[in-house]
Amino acid sequence: MVTPFDIADWIQGHLLRIEQVLSVWVGQGAPAGLGEAMRYAVLDGGKRLRPLLVLAARHAVASADGADASLHSSCDEAALRAACAVELIHAYSLVHDDMPCMDNDVLRRGKPTVHVQFGQAQALLAGDALQALAFELLVPENSAIPHNIQARLCSVLARAAGAQGMAGGQAIDLASVGVALNENQLRHMHRLKTGALLEGSVLMGATCGQANATALAALAQYGAALGLAFQVVDDILDVTADAATLGKTAGKDAAQDKPTYVSLLGLESAQRHAQDLHQQALAALEASGLPDTRALAALADKVVHRAY
Amino acid sequence: MVTPFDIADWIQGHLLRIEQVLSVWVGQGAPAGLGEAMRYAVLDGGKRLRPLLVLAARHAVASADGADASLHSSCDEAALRAACAVELIHAYSLVHDDMPCMDNDVLRRGKPTVHVQFGQAQALLAGDALQALAFELLVPENSAIPHNIQARLCSVLARAAGAQGMAGGQAIDLASVGVALNENQLRHMHRLKTGALLEGSVLMGATCGQANATALAALAQYGAALGLAFQVVDDILDVTADAATLGKTAGKDAAQDKPTYVSLLGLESAQRHAQDLHQQALAALEASGLPDTRALAALADKVVHRAY
Repeated sequence: MVTPFDIADWIQGHLLRIEQVLSVWVGQGAPAGLGEAMRYAVLDGGKRLRPLLVLAARHAVASADGADASLHSSCDEAALRAACAVELIHAYSLVHDDMPCMDNDVLRRGKPTVHVQFGQAQALLAGDALQALAFELLVPENSAIPHNIQARLCSVLARAAGAQGMAGGQAIDLASVGVALNENQLRHMHRLKTGALLEGSVLMGATCGQANATALAALAQYGAALGLAFQVVDDILDVTADAATLGKTAGKDAAQDKPTYVSLLGLESAQRHAQDLHQQALAALEASGLPDTRALAALADKVVHRAY
Repeated sequence: MVTPFDIADWIQGHLLRIEQVLSVWVGQGAPAGLGEAMRYAVLDGGKRLRPLLVLAARHAVASADGADASLHSSCDEAALRAACAVELIHAYSLVHDDMPCMDNDVLRRGKPTVHVQFGQAQALLAGDALQALAFELLVPENSAIPHNIQARLCSVLARAAGAQGMAGGQAIDLASVGVALNENQLRHMHRLKTGALLEGSVLMGATCGQANATALAALAQYGAALGLAFQVVDDILDVTADAATLGKTAGKDAAQDKPTYVSLLGLESAQRHAQDLHQQALAALEASGLPDTRALAALADKVVHRAY
């Protein structure tokens, strides 16, 4: 049964919940300086796309199995924990990525980056501690979340974050400065660097429920298309937007001679490519057989039409 | 039943197995440069104290529940995975700790440190990917390891590694350069910085079996005493050993004006303290009620009597 649904309300309500629990969970019990750096890295400013994808995928899957979609069942607790965990992985990757030995960026979400604010050593540790916290959130003691779901969430997140996922993509990126990649190579890099965690978010949400194989495969396709669309749009915005809108340094890729979809395809073709991927994502939702994929569809729209 | 047992054989056999599986698991499927840096950081040279603690604790617990102590049961697979996971956390922490923004060390286990060999960016990513891999190892798909054990292992490891464990201790260490810590503050720092992961190793091994509450509490005490003894001996060796024996730069703590047990207590008192902690660890094993704690006792001996 598909109930009346206001997507703006849905996003707003879930964003609020995500911010609430992140604020409770991040930095708790940490030594003062470290906790402060962790909270600075995570709170106040993120778009929370990955947590919203987790919750939207959980919403879509729950629409099929008729489960209570409130945040009170154990599976919704699992989804909320997964949503925060994936955001912590994303946040830690930004902290490390901004460091002088990587992208050497001083501005993020309109604020000084973590190492500028707290020093490089604290930034390094804060990123490390955020990754550990991500996994800690998924395996709470004395929780009603079934252990098989806890283990599966850890597994999906670890693969998405590690050498065959995000970290692997960053390593390929590192080796690609000044190198002429073709479109296949560029796609492979982005599939790992940003796609793996976005797709992982969708799969983690689907894990907090009883998605059948068809739905799971379709959601994975949605996640893959969305992940690539995200990157293509990122490359477009790096050329078309200014730093004030982006909240980070614009024009960096070209300045660093990094291959992008715009440098490879040209601006117009890149924009068409983003539209194609958007359509692929929506088609995958159709094919999923899930009755209510409106939140996932709305997030795909946001990814493609965002201004920053 | 306590069977005849040669501790040197036990350690040798288990070391071999640890090296074998680390060699298979580390860097698998990673992009070339990243995988190489990960393997360089982990393989060839570690003492493997933490993995041995996991396996020795598993051995002690299995001696009580009469389980088959071979490496073929699901719980022994769990212990082997836990052993490798904890070593990966240790290895990643060394990689990040050696970086210029932290300890700026160029020598580790007698070889150039990872960032010297592969560059800082690759070292940063290799550390990050090793942490993710540690958690991935604990939650294998299609394994006979019960999901509650998988989840519990993740939980213990995440806490031991994170802001309330190792990373937290490193942050306190960072804030302690040139500061006059008293013995309580120094102990608190080391409990987190090195103690948490050593104690976590023992608890992870105990998790791969059916330890009762008395045994678990005693093993935690053993781990805490051993963890502290390890650090006291480290401080002693930093003064008494040379770089060739240590495989790393000697005399660094004093040079960096870092508080140590030797600077706080003097060399002789520090040596007596290490002996006391050694006795506490052995007394905890007695109190555990576990029939066969010989491997754990032998590892405590090794920690206190090591020359590097």
